[in-house]
Amino acid sequence: MKVVVVGSGALGGAVQQVLAEHGYEVLTVGRTSGMFRADLSDRASLDALFAKLGSVDAVANAAGDVFPAPLPQTTDDHWTKSFAAKGMGQINLVRAGLPFIADNGSFTLVSGVLGDEVAPACTVGATVNRLVEGFVQAAASELPRGVRINCVSPTVLTESPAYYDFFPGFTPVPALEVAHAYLRAIANPITGRILKLHKTNA
Amino acid sequence: MKVVVVGSGALGGAVQQVLAEHGYEVLTVGRTSGMFRADLSDRASLDALFAKLGSVDAVANAAGDVFPAPLPQTTDDHWTKSFAAKGMGQINLVRAGLPFIADNGSFTLVSGVLGDEVAPACTVGATVNRLVEGFVQAAASELPRGVRINCVSPTVLTESPAYYDFFPGFTPVPALEVAHAYLRAIANPITGRILKLHKTNA
Repeated sequence: MKVVVVGSGALGGAVQQVLAEHGYEVLTVGRTSGMFRADLSDRASLDALFAKLGSVDAVANAAGDVFPAPLPQTTDDHWTKSFAAKGMGQINLVRAGLPFIADNGSFTLVSGVLGDEVAPACTVGATVNRLVEGFVQAAASELPRGVRINCVSPTVLTESPAYYDFFPGFTPVPALEVAHAYLRAIANPITGRILKLHKTNA
Repeated sequence: MKVVVVGSGALGGAVQQVLAEHGYEVLTVGRTSGMFRADLSDRASLDALFAKLGSVDAVANAAGDVFPAPLPQTTDDHWTKSFAAKGMGQINLVRAGLPFIADNGSFTLVSGVLGDEVAPACTVGATVNRLVEGFVQAAASELPRGVRINCVSPTVLTESPAYYDFFPGFTPVPALEVAHAYLRAIANPITGRILKLHKTNA
């Protein structure tokens, strides 16, 4: 089983590790590192990626920047860049990968705790995350050939203390725990699911 | 109470009517008709609109096109135009209007039944609707001066038989019933709410 893992940060690394430990052949993709280069914001780079990769069994995405600011201070740039990367970038990953993914293969995208929970300056992140989740839940009804699609929604990662201040009081989750949700999405016959790794109080 | 109503279709007309019947001063905005001209896809036209209008008490949007296609056949154009109008267009309406809206004023945006329910070729609409709802629910926590924001989610309108085939088996709802949800969002102290006018089976 060939799995493409996009993203080489703390989460991408953990996803690579968990999948390799479970016997998957992992093809790593990053903007500046990994076995292959591609950028979610650059559709042409995604088409070029799959032209190189050929047929794959699963695509797991652990990349997608968001550029937040307090809502009244957001600029066109905050919105445009956030949509381009984590929003349209993930949609384009699916569009570019669809001709190359095997029957009954799967896409796993990433959203995040914002959208379910409120935090300071959360609106850009919440908007993009909910966009991704809406796409995943609807696309599950439209993908051909048994191809599945799911979404993993992490909270702030234990490995990313630089982000702790943006999530005050949110309990961090280890990247390996989130990575197991990717394995769950890939290895079980589920589709249209949002797997939430949140440890927030209800 | 001065209310700006954007959109002059079946829904916009009904919103104008209900608000006028309830004593609001209604300022109508359309791309090609109405007292003022503006286009959600054109940020400069929104800035020009509010520069002309000055202070207002509420902004109600009943416009925002979506350009759907079966997911595997969607083009960049379907996505870009849908995000520009109903997605980023509504976000920009709030960003442009925020400096002009009165303390404790309100924005009411529009999403739709897709995103909650599956229909043929629903993914573009679902993605954009969920984007709008995510924005509304998060923005409610960030808007200053007591400004409120809510979202009305209609199903297919009784007045729009041209769309019936896109919603097979969905019970249409009269535009006036949806318009009353706008009145509810404007006249009650609620924020971050998605008011759903769906008559679908659970």
